[in-house]
Amino acid sequence: MSEKADAPNGTSIESLIRLLARLPGLGPRSARRAVLHLIRKREALMQPLARALEDVAQAIRVCTTCGNIDTTDPCAICRDPRRDAAHLCVVEDVGDLWALERSGLFRGRYHVLGGTLSALDGVGPEDLAIGSLVARVGKGGIEEVILALNATVDGQTTAHYITERLSEYPVRVTALAHGVPVGGELDYLDDGTLAAALKARHPV
Amino acid sequence: MSEKADAPNGTSIESLIRLLARLPGLGPRSARRAVLHLIRKREALMQPLARALEDVAQAIRVCTTCGNIDTTDPCAICRDPRRDAAHLCVVEDVGDLWALERSGLFRGRYHVLGGTLSALDGVGPEDLAIGSLVARVGKGGIEEVILALNATVDGQTTAHYITERLSEYPVRVTALAHGVPVGGELDYLDDGTLAAALKARHPV
Repeated sequence: MSEKADAPNGTSIESLIRLLARLPGLGPRSARRAVLHLIRKREALMQPLARALEDVAQAIRVCTTCGNIDTTDPCAICRDPRRDAAHLCVVEDVGDLWALERSGLFRGRYHVLGGTLSALDGVGPEDLAIGSLVARVGKGGIEEVILALNATVDGQTTAHYITERLSEYPVRVTALAHGVPVGGELDYLDDGTLAAALKARHPV
Repeated sequence: MSEKADAPNGTSIESLIRLLARLPGLGPRSARRAVLHLIRKREALMQPLARALEDVAQAIRVCTTCGNIDTTDPCAICRDPRRDAAHLCVVEDVGDLWALERSGLFRGRYHVLGGTLSALDGVGPEDLAIGSLVARVGKGGIEEVILALNATVDGQTTAHYITERLSEYPVRVTALAHGVPVGGELDYLDDGTLAAALKARHPV
């Protein structure tokens, strides 16, 4: 199986395939399929996609308050007066913020760290938006900081570090509960999750 | 797991995700990941991709001779005087043409059918570029028509139909050999392939 990305014809087609192959989840083979699909749907898909990419590339801003990506700065969440400014949810990246927003369960505001502390990858506190988080909390008005970080070693290390940094402020720092995923079967769960679920058991 | 494609913020971001999710091999979830990746690489990837899509959408032509997709009509293969016009390779679609071109093994010209005959899907000979194939052969100068169709029932039905249609012309009609894929293990082959390989056995 050849892994070359080139189509035999049309250098502009070749370069389109090469660019698409750089998206996560796409390789040279699926990029070629995508380009054939786009060419077949030139009016309905290819031209709208080109325009949407151009629009977003022009319009996107990183919110200087929370780190969210939006077409305005401050972002729609930071500007929305109906969002509860007293509850601040700390996430690793914008994808996590989107996941929480899709759930519709959280009506406070966010703070995007831009990653997690990682000794292996050489990511220190100064590489993340931790200073700006402490400054936001320091300004007052925030009652609770919810650490919605991934349940990985790096995520938990980061949560621990942030908790330390915020300990001098009169703010409640909480973290997402660990436990059995809803719909999950015990048989398929790892020991760590089982242990956490057992430890956090509650009366029914 | 939510299958909604919407990001919480920025309608232009949402519509970009929705468009990307329509590509084969991408769903709402991977389209969101792709958009986040694009936003992070705005200069290096997002803007070049927008331009490449626009360029290709403007430039692509379907070759009126062979059905290939290129930025010129006739396509680069039909225009290339070094390609052997006496050998014509018939393929189902442009993706198959690209696969053969990547191999670099065939130096003749192509004819893209645009699909296969299919009683189930109601695809008849008039829906495919079979009339134009017969016309190309009728003009003379072609010695051999190589049917490089998929080894499916529809592909083989189409091959049979084309062979019939071309039987009145002084042209050799051949098909790709069936057999054990190079590097393939007998244990994993289906009976049809084994039977074909056995039937076509040759002295060593």
